[in-house]
Amino acid sequence: MTTTTRIHSAGEAGFVEFRASPGHRRPVAKRGSVEVVVIGHTGQVGSALVQRLTRIGGQRGLPELKFSEGINRSRHIFADGREVRELPRASGSLGELASRLGSRRRPAVIVDCTADPDLPRLYPDWLRAGIGVVTPNKHGLAGDEKLYRAIREAAQRSGAPLAYSATVGAGSPILSTLRRMRQAGAAPSGITAVLSGTLSHVFSAMTDGASLSEAVADARSRGFTEPNPLEDLSGRDVARKLRIMLREAGLDEIGIHREPVVPDAPARSASDEPAVKALLESLDEAWRRRLAQARSRQTVMVYLARFGQSGATVAPVCVAPDSPFARLAGSGNRACIEWPDDPDCPMDIFGPGAGTNVTAGAVLADLVEAASGLAR
Amino acid sequence: MTTTTRIHSAGEAGFVEFRASPGHRRPVAKRGSVEVVVIGHTGQVGSALVQRLTRIGGQRGLPELKFSEGINRSRHIFADGREVRELPRASGSLGELASRLGSRRRPAVIVDCTADPDLPRLYPDWLRAGIGVVTPNKHGLAGDEKLYRAIREAAQRSGAPLAYSATVGAGSPILSTLRRMRQAGAAPSGITAVLSGTLSHVFSAMTDGASLSEAVADARSRGFTEPNPLEDLSGRDVARKLRIMLREAGLDEIGIHREPVVPDAPARSASDEPAVKALLESLDEAWRRRLAQARSRQTVMVYLARFGQSGATVAPVCVAPDSPFARLAGSGNRACIEWPDDPDCPMDIFGPGAGTNVTAGAVLADLVEAASGLAR
Repeated sequence: MTTTTRIHSAGEAGFVEFRASPGHRRPVAKRGSVEVVVIGHTGQVGSALVQRLTRIGGQRGLPELKFSEGINRSRHIFADGREVRELPRASGSLGELASRLGSRRRPAVIVDCTADPDLPRLYPDWLRAGIGVVTPNKHGLAGDEKLYRAIREAAQRSGAPLAYSATVGAGSPILSTLRRMRQAGAAPSGITAVLSGTLSHVFSAMTDGASLSEAVADARSRGFTEPNPLEDLSGRDVARKLRIMLREAGLDEIGIHREPVVPDAPARSASDEPAVKALLESLDEAWRRRLAQARSRQTVMVYLARFGQSGATVAPVCVAPDSPFARLAGSGNRACIEWPDDPDCPMDIFGPGAGTNVTAGAVLADLVEAASGLAR
Repeated sequence: MTTTTRIHSAGEAGFVEFRASPGHRRPVAKRGSVEVVVIGHTGQVGSALVQRLTRIGGQRGLPELKFSEGINRSRHIFADGREVRELPRASGSLGELASRLGSRRRPAVIVDCTADPDLPRLYPDWLRAGIGVVTPNKHGLAGDEKLYRAIREAAQRSGAPLAYSATVGAGSPILSTLRRMRQAGAAPSGITAVLSGTLSHVFSAMTDGASLSEAVADARSRGFTEPNPLEDLSGRDVARKLRIMLREAGLDEIGIHREPVVPDAPARSASDEPAVKALLESLDEAWRRRLAQARSRQTVMVYLARFGQSGATVAPVCVAPDSPFARLAGSGNRACIEWPDDPDCPMDIFGPGAGTNVTAGAVLADLVEAASGLAR
């Protein structure tokens, strides 16, 4: 079955088009065009990205981005200009991307907009075929050593661009700063960061007197948590982000000690919603005591990612109430990075840590950079 | 006269070498090498850069940086490996760089480590010859519209890299963020920034009760000011940084209103040190009153660069004492950037705004990126 649809590119509220100056309006030859394949094109970030792609247009000196395919769990669409053919997704459609796109002349970038833990296993094939990879998916870059090395290796050998600024801090310039400094021969001497808006919200609510189970229920009702909130409370997502930061800084071999909010063993056994609720309630009293203890010391508790002389940890930590890490606004992420060059003046980067628009913006910025590298 | 010297590359205190992981130590072919010509190689930033260049070594997947020439006001050195020939600088040595370097096969980058207001007039020639340009010198990028367009145009047409992250915030990721977002089609809706460590120091001292002339004398004795402190007090340097930020954001045509700490007309007439001192003292009383007024309103005064709906200004402004812009540590710079995508959660970037090591580090990071672009 084939259907034809039209992609709408109506102006999205809250997004200002680039206001080009007169000089930028002069017609000049664009540097080629780049095909963009979006996996997860119907998800939140994926659909926001596709909307922007159809609207952005080639800018002066930058290649044109052509959204050519979208693939989700069940459908595969092929776009040609604004006409779109939609087909059921064939089995093997992801596996054959490397050879199909790689054999064409036009440069291409695959954007993985999923949170699929297995899809990154295909990145090395794509990269080896000279296809760029852009993604907000943390599982490859934070994945096991072997996969991570294979991804890096493939990108380095083929020269195909690989970009993932949206994996940490939703595109705040945290990773780019670590990478630039590594390339210039410098490694950070310390990192302190709040990397989970969800955990900030939970700890902030507990500081205000809510129990753990109430705080989690509140975060969940606002759409801040994963479908299973124990995933957020495990600290694994924060550990992944710290892992990506450390790797970007060239510190590949640092072990990360993780202290979950809810212990791993009972979390694994809590298989349904009532079990999760019961587990959280069983921990309310212990967390009430920890928060009271923090308060008695004139501190507040936050969930921090840290790296320093004594190693790397993600854990609940007491900080002074006027610390920049206490009670961050909204889902904000903050990373404070110390450099041996100027230990008295650490770099401090704060930005929205999540959000569909912000993440899609970061992915698009990565995509433009990747495409520029390919179309050169 | 020709002398032969040896460049020392003894470990500089306070700088940690990149700790490569085992994977990074495997010998792989480097992607070519790039010649580096440093203008102002004996100045503070220039000599720190040359020291690092001799030490950094080619990193995996990155081109090797070969320091080949250094030029200052009187000398011209030619480096071949670690042997260096030093000659008196010939007239026209800068003018002939474009043709001499451009005619060779090896890719080259010129680093302008001066603060010379005229040297940037040569950037378009260099760029047109395919030579990369890296600089912490603000005068070209903040310069008059015609020169700025010529520089941009030359870089765009030739594809030669042009990098200047050290011009604003000493390499804090302020400019890279604005550029990335512009390329992705987004313009900031607001900017608030402290961009002068010198003015922060002066206003902080005045808040603590010093008079203007005392505050300036103190900043000067610590080496924080230009030889003529009226240059800092004019706000021109802050205006240049804001100009570079706005241009990077694609907002080329915004006028900047500048309110100096010392009015321009008497500042122009103060030709020697006693005249500068007398001028500052004549303004002590007026500034004492402004500071007292700020205090009576429970505010402190800082020198801010701002952009928003009502335009762009650099001026002394009253802020709340707990504002992130009040009393920044050391020479720290802070830029707060609002995006229409997430107006409630502006991005906030803080970092050391000055310092020889930090600036040289930013120039080196730019240089590595520029060289990667050339050696591709």
